[in-house]
Amino acid sequence: MIGTMAFDTIETPYGKVEMVIGGACTYAAWSASFYTNNIQVVSIVGEDFPTSEIELLESRGVDSAGIEIVEGKKSFFWSGKYHDNMNSRDTLVTDLNVLADFDPVLPDAYNKPSFVMLGNLTPEIQLKVMDQLESKPKLIVLDTMNFWMDVAMDSLKKAISKVDVLTINDDEARQLSGEYSLVHAAEKIHAMGPKILVIKKGEHGALLFYNSELFYAPALPLAVVKDPTGAGDTFAGGFIGYLAKTDDISYGNIKRAIIHGSAMASHCVEEFSLDKIKTLSSEDVDARLEQFKSLTQFDL
Amino acid sequence: MIGTMAFDTIETPYGKVEMVIGGACTYAAWSASFYTNNIQVVSIVGEDFPTSEIELLESRGVDSAGIEIVEGKKSFFWSGKYHDNMNSRDTLVTDLNVLADFDPVLPDAYNKPSFVMLGNLTPEIQLKVMDQLESKPKLIVLDTMNFWMDVAMDSLKKAISKVDVLTINDDEARQLSGEYSLVHAAEKIHAMGPKILVIKKGEHGALLFYNSELFYAPALPLAVVKDPTGAGDTFAGGFIGYLAKTDDISYGNIKRAIIHGSAMASHCVEEFSLDKIKTLSSEDVDARLEQFKSLTQFDL
Repeated sequence: MIGTMAFDTIETPYGKVEMVIGGACTYAAWSASFYTNNIQVVSIVGEDFPTSEIELLESRGVDSAGIEIVEGKKSFFWSGKYHDNMNSRDTLVTDLNVLADFDPVLPDAYNKPSFVMLGNLTPEIQLKVMDQLESKPKLIVLDTMNFWMDVAMDSLKKAISKVDVLTINDDEARQLSGEYSLVHAAEKIHAMGPKILVIKKGEHGALLFYNSELFYAPALPLAVVKDPTGAGDTFAGGFIGYLAKTDDISYGNIKRAIIHGSAMASHCVEEFSLDKIKTLSSEDVDARLEQFKSLTQFDL
Repeated sequence: MIGTMAFDTIETPYGKVEMVIGGACTYAAWSASFYTNNIQVVSIVGEDFPTSEIELLESRGVDSAGIEIVEGKKSFFWSGKYHDNMNSRDTLVTDLNVLADFDPVLPDAYNKPSFVMLGNLTPEIQLKVMDQLESKPKLIVLDTMNFWMDVAMDSLKKAISKVDVLTINDDEARQLSGEYSLVHAAEKIHAMGPKILVIKKGEHGALLFYNSELFYAPALPLAVVKDPTGAGDTFAGGFIGYLAKTDDISYGNIKRAIIHGSAMASHCVEEFSLDKIKTLSSEDVDARLEQFKSLTQFDL
């Protein structure tokens, strides 16, 4: 998987944390590590990124050979403030730092992955990574955001055309397709390449469009949501981690992967940064999955 | 069931219809009529309300003895315009007309219902109807809205304290409870009286809080949503109609009732006014239920 590793300063109605560990790849790798101990990470950090954090990831089965550490430079930094409803936020600071020069070269051992997660980065970088793969993976997942639709739609569409799964939110699906109805949006996005579209709806859950099949995984209503940062990345990590573990991309298993991703994301938001994810037991993971099952299952 | 019968003028991105049949009770009665032919309606209309519409309802098992027809006056009229996203609307006209003097007196035959639906009206009227019941119903459902929380919170709380099921949307649950988290909001609302809280989330589905149990029925993503008017009332009608038909208020059956209500609401919004509901076959109803099942069911 490829994505950012970063520092975040985050303010929510529950408090403020400064310079905590963040980044899409960090969240996704932690989440996937509950399913597999064979995770190859491609990222870039500055000399300020704690060695202990990388060692902690290594202890969970993460290969850090693809993490470039740039001496004399700082790691990517993001700062944001969430509004009272937690559904919207203001970005206060985005310091690209090392990310500005990110030009990933996959280590030799990385060239034949079965499952690939392309985190939210410039479409050019996502394309470059795909170009370096020596064999066709079983499944490529691409995450992106409205910003790249605004400034790099052509290369984004090129990247999207090469992947199997696209993960975006509902507004982004509308922007990308030009269709308000998500059913029509999915049809147009399928025609762009990805057979599988996952629409992330935050507290309203996630929608899966798998060819002509439709599956809706609600989010678990939680008593306390302290910090939504990283929820989407934690979802993606659980999703692809579960698929890698089970090595099965049938519709039924993709549905299960959506539930696993949703369950991991529900843990993530209950504490700031990675605080809850880092202390989760496999019993916690299993118990939450059972909650998702009872949340949605019925007999007609 | 008690509620409005009215005329609506509705504009959405799909078009405009003028002076079409509307009203919460009309939608709910039509929806319930797919489940039972024993529906006692309490409402009020002016001399302008078409006799043919009342006869049509009678042909579906609706007892119209409780529909007061006021000579020389007009029916309740509502006009609204939906925004492009269909999730918000502007009310352009609200002419109470006959509704201003509504003082419902239940016909003798109506005094011992098993299932009661109190549509969105002043809490005083909802209380008056409950006072006229001679025996305790198996289940009373109350629907209300933010307006009554703004202008009549005390009598609304009194009405809520006497019912089993409260149906409101997520913002209203927050306003009523003073809690942002819906989990905490549900705890406070349970303490006000209703053991069962149904939170309607429109295109995001419906949440059921049944004592300490939690169930999430997603809405079916639709290719075309022409007119959301009446969706909540159609949901309520299907919900209570199914419960009346099955005469079972266990948790498992309440969950099924939520799915039946959601399925009926999904039909409602596909055409203006009651146009689709009036032409539905039982095969259409069954097929849509199966879609809801495949939308949400998975094996872990």
